[in-house]
Amino acid sequence: MPGFQKLVPVDQALRSFLEAIPDPGPGSTELIRTEDALGRALAEPVAAPHALPPFDRTTVDGYAVRAADTLGASADRPARLTVTGEVSMGSAPQLGVELGHAALVHTGGMIPGGADAVVMIEDTRAANGTEIQVLKAVASGQNVIREGEDVAAGQIVIPAGVRLRPQEIGGLMALGIVRVQVRLRPAVALLSTGDEVVTPDQEPAAGQVRDVNSYSLAALVEQAGGRPIRYGIIPDSAAELEAVSRRAHAESDLVVIAAGSSVSVRDLSAGVIQTLGTPGILVHGVALRPGKPTILAVCDRVPVIGLPGNPVSALVVAGLFLLPALRKLLGLRGPEWASVRQARLTSIVKSASGREDYLPVRLEVSPQGLLAAPVHGGSNMIFTLVRADGLIRIPPEATALEAGSPVEVRLFHDA
Amino acid sequence: MPGFQKLVPVDQALRSFLEAIPDPGPGSTELIRTEDALGRALAEPVAAPHALPPFDRTTVDGYAVRAADTLGASADRPARLTVTGEVSMGSAPQLGVELGHAALVHTGGMIPGGADAVVMIEDTRAANGTEIQVLKAVASGQNVIREGEDVAAGQIVIPAGVRLRPQEIGGLMALGIVRVQVRLRPAVALLSTGDEVVTPDQEPAAGQVRDVNSYSLAALVEQAGGRPIRYGIIPDSAAELEAVSRRAHAESDLVVIAAGSSVSVRDLSAGVIQTLGTPGILVHGVALRPGKPTILAVCDRVPVIGLPGNPVSALVVAGLFLLPALRKLLGLRGPEWASVRQARLTSIVKSASGREDYLPVRLEVSPQGLLAAPVHGGSNMIFTLVRADGLIRIPPEATALEAGSPVEVRLFHDA
Repeated sequence: MPGFQKLVPVDQALRSFLEAIPDPGPGSTELIRTEDALGRALAEPVAAPHALPPFDRTTVDGYAVRAADTLGASADRPARLTVTGEVSMGSAPQLGVELGHAALVHTGGMIPGGADAVVMIEDTRAANGTEIQVLKAVASGQNVIREGEDVAAGQIVIPAGVRLRPQEIGGLMALGIVRVQVRLRPAVALLSTGDEVVTPDQEPAAGQVRDVNSYSLAALVEQAGGRPIRYGIIPDSAAELEAVSRRAHAESDLVVIAAGSSVSVRDLSAGVIQTLGTPGILVHGVALRPGKPTILAVCDRVPVIGLPGNPVSALVVAGLFLLPALRKLLGLRGPEWASVRQARLTSIVKSASGREDYLPVRLEVSPQGLLAAPVHGGSNMIFTLVRADGLIRIPPEATALEAGSPVEVRLFHDA
Repeated sequence: MPGFQKLVPVDQALRSFLEAIPDPGPGSTELIRTEDALGRALAEPVAAPHALPPFDRTTVDGYAVRAADTLGASADRPARLTVTGEVSMGSAPQLGVELGHAALVHTGGMIPGGADAVVMIEDTRAANGTEIQVLKAVASGQNVIREGEDVAAGQIVIPAGVRLRPQEIGGLMALGIVRVQVRLRPAVALLSTGDEVVTPDQEPAAGQVRDVNSYSLAALVEQAGGRPIRYGIIPDSAAELEAVSRRAHAESDLVVIAAGSSVSVRDLSAGVIQTLGTPGILVHGVALRPGKPTILAVCDRVPVIGLPGNPVSALVVAGLFLLPALRKLLGLRGPEWASVRQARLTSIVKSASGREDYLPVRLEVSPQGLLAAPVHGGSNMIFTLVRADGLIRIPPEATALEAGSPVEVRLFHDA
C-alpha cells in the first residue's frame, strides 16, 4: 500500500489540506432575498444604512418628562406635572415637553423633544384634570433607548463570512436590508465506486451491496450548506473512474470519491486523483481510525477527497475533512462552536497509540450526570452510527480511556 | 394587567402548555423519497426487511480459510494451504473452502461456504504454485462480519419520532428503503401586530419601526422543521386582529401572535386568543426575563402563542415555548441533546429572585478555557442577539452570578 508507510496526524493533514484550498473568488456569490438567506454564508460585510433605533424610544409605558422635574419625588412628596398630550404609536410626536409638563407614551414609542426620561405608569397617580403625580424620581435617560444605542449609522453590523441565523435575518430586516450577497452553495460531486455496489432501489444479488455513501454524504453536504451532486456508481475500472472524475472535477467545487472496499480499488482512486491536476495528492494515509486510507488532494484549485468505502468511515472522515473544506469554500470565518456535551464513559475503550480514534457513543441521562456508552461495531455497519448520538475522540497519545473518564461528545446533528 | 399578578414559573408553564397540545394525528404524514428526508421526523417505525449484512463478509483483504487449518501457525511453522480460487467483488462465490484449502477474498466480499475466518494478506506468504503459507493462526470468526451482525431481519432499526440525520438516510438506503413516511411540516402562522410596524422594504416614518419578528421567527420555524406562513402586519384593532387570527387558526397547526410593544396591544392579543376556542389561555405571564407578558394557549386543539413584541424577547421566548411545541407537533420523541458549551463568566450578572433570566453571551477562547462574555442590551435591540453565540440561564433562586462562575451556554445555532 504505497503512501501508507508514514501516516499523517489528523491535525497536520487538515492543515495542509486547508492551506492548499484557495479562498472563494468574487464570482462565487449571489444576491438573494434576506428572507431566504437562513443558513447561507454572508459574502460581504453589511454596514448599517442608519442608526438603530433611529430615534429615542421609551422602553416602558408611562410619561415622558424632564428628569429634573422629578428630582426628590416620592409617594409622600410627589412631583406634580401637567399632561399636555399623548404620543400615539407609529407617528412622530406633535408636541414637545416643556418644564413641568409630561406626555403619555407607549413602549417603543418616540420620545418627544424636550423630554429626557420616562416615568413608569405604575409610578404615577392621576391627579385633578390633566395633572399627574410622579411618585418616584427618574434620572436623565432612564427608561429610554437612545438613537443608535443598538447600532450606529455606518457601523459594520455583520462581517463577511458569517452563517446567517434567525437573529441576523431579523437584524437585516430591522435595517431595511431585504437582499443580501451570499456565497453560492459549493457544488460537491459525490462518486461511489465498486463493482459490488448497486443502487438502493435494486435487490442486491449475492455478494452485492447497496450504495449508502452517495446518500449519507449528500445529506451531510446539504446540512452543511453545500449542494450535493451524485455522479452515481462507477465500476472498478481506472478508465471509467478517470472519465467520471474528470467531468466531476470540471463541474464541481469539491470532488469526493468514496472508494470501493478493496485495497486494489483504493489504489485506483489515488492514481486517478493524481491525473486531475496540481499539486495533486497532499496526504495519503492518516493516523486515524476509522479512516486510515483517506486521500486529501487539491487538483487545479479544486479540493478532492478520497474517502474509505465503509459507510461509518466515510461519514466520520467526511466530518473531519469534508466539512472544514466546505467551510473554507463558503468563506466562513470565526470559530465554529461545535456542539459538544461533557459526559462520563460507561466502559473502558482501547486504542492504538499514535493514532486518533473516533468512537460512536450513545448519550444517557443518569442521576450522576450525562453518560456516554460506546457503540461498538465494524466501520461497515452503518447502523452503528444510527444508534449513536455523537463521537468521542481518543487522542493519539492515549492507549485507553477508563470507565468513568470524562469525555467530550461531539454531537452529530451539528453540521 | 390582568393575569400578571401571579407569574407562572417557566417549567410549569411549558408543562401545562405541552400537555394541552394533542399528539399529531395519523393524517399528518406524507410518503417522501428517503434521499429528500434529511431533518424530517419519521412518522412510523422502520423495520429491517432483511439482515445487514445479508451475508458473511470479510473485513480485510486476505484468504478465507477454515480456522482449524491455521491452528498453531507461525512465521517459523507456517500452515500450508492450497488456493482454489478468488471471490470477485459483487458476485457469489462459486467455490467452497474445503479442509486444507483457501480462497482469495477482498474486503467486503462474501465468505465462501466452508470457510469461517479470513487470514490477512500480510500474514501470508506465497509458496510454490497455488500454495500459500499462513504465518499466523486465526480464530473462527476472525476478520468476518456475520450475516445480521449490524441489523437482524425484522428488527426495528429506527423508531418513530426520530429526526433523520445523514446516518439514518444511509441506513435506510442500505436496507433498500427508498421511501419513508414522515410528518408533514407543521404550518406555523406568524402575525405581527402594531400600528407602528411597517414592512422591511418600507422607509419608516418618524415613530415607525420595521417588522423584524415575522422574519426572525420564520427563520427559527424553518430551522426547526416547521413551515412558516406570514400573515403580515395587523394594526392595533381588535376586529382586524380577530379576523386574521381566526383565518390563521383555521389554516395552521400553530399560531404565533407577536404583540405590538404597548401594554394595551398585549391585552388585545389575550382577548382575541380567548375567542379562538377552548380551553383557551393556559398561561398569561411567565416568571421570565425577557418574556414576562408571554401568553400560552390551546384553542380547539391548535396551540396559540402570544409573544412579546420586542425582537429579542420574541426570539428567546420562541426558543423556550415555540420550539418544544413544534417538537410535539412533529411527534419527535426522546431526549433532545441541545448544544451547550461550558464556559466561565467574564463579569458579574444580576437577576431578580423568583424569575428565570436568559442573558445573551459571546463565547471567547482563552488559555484558561472558554469564556462567556455577557452581551448587554435592551430586549428591543435585535443586534444584541447578532453579537451573541448563545444564552445563559440564571435560575429563579439566584440573584447574581459572580465573574468566573461556570455557566452552561445554550448555543443558538441548534434549533
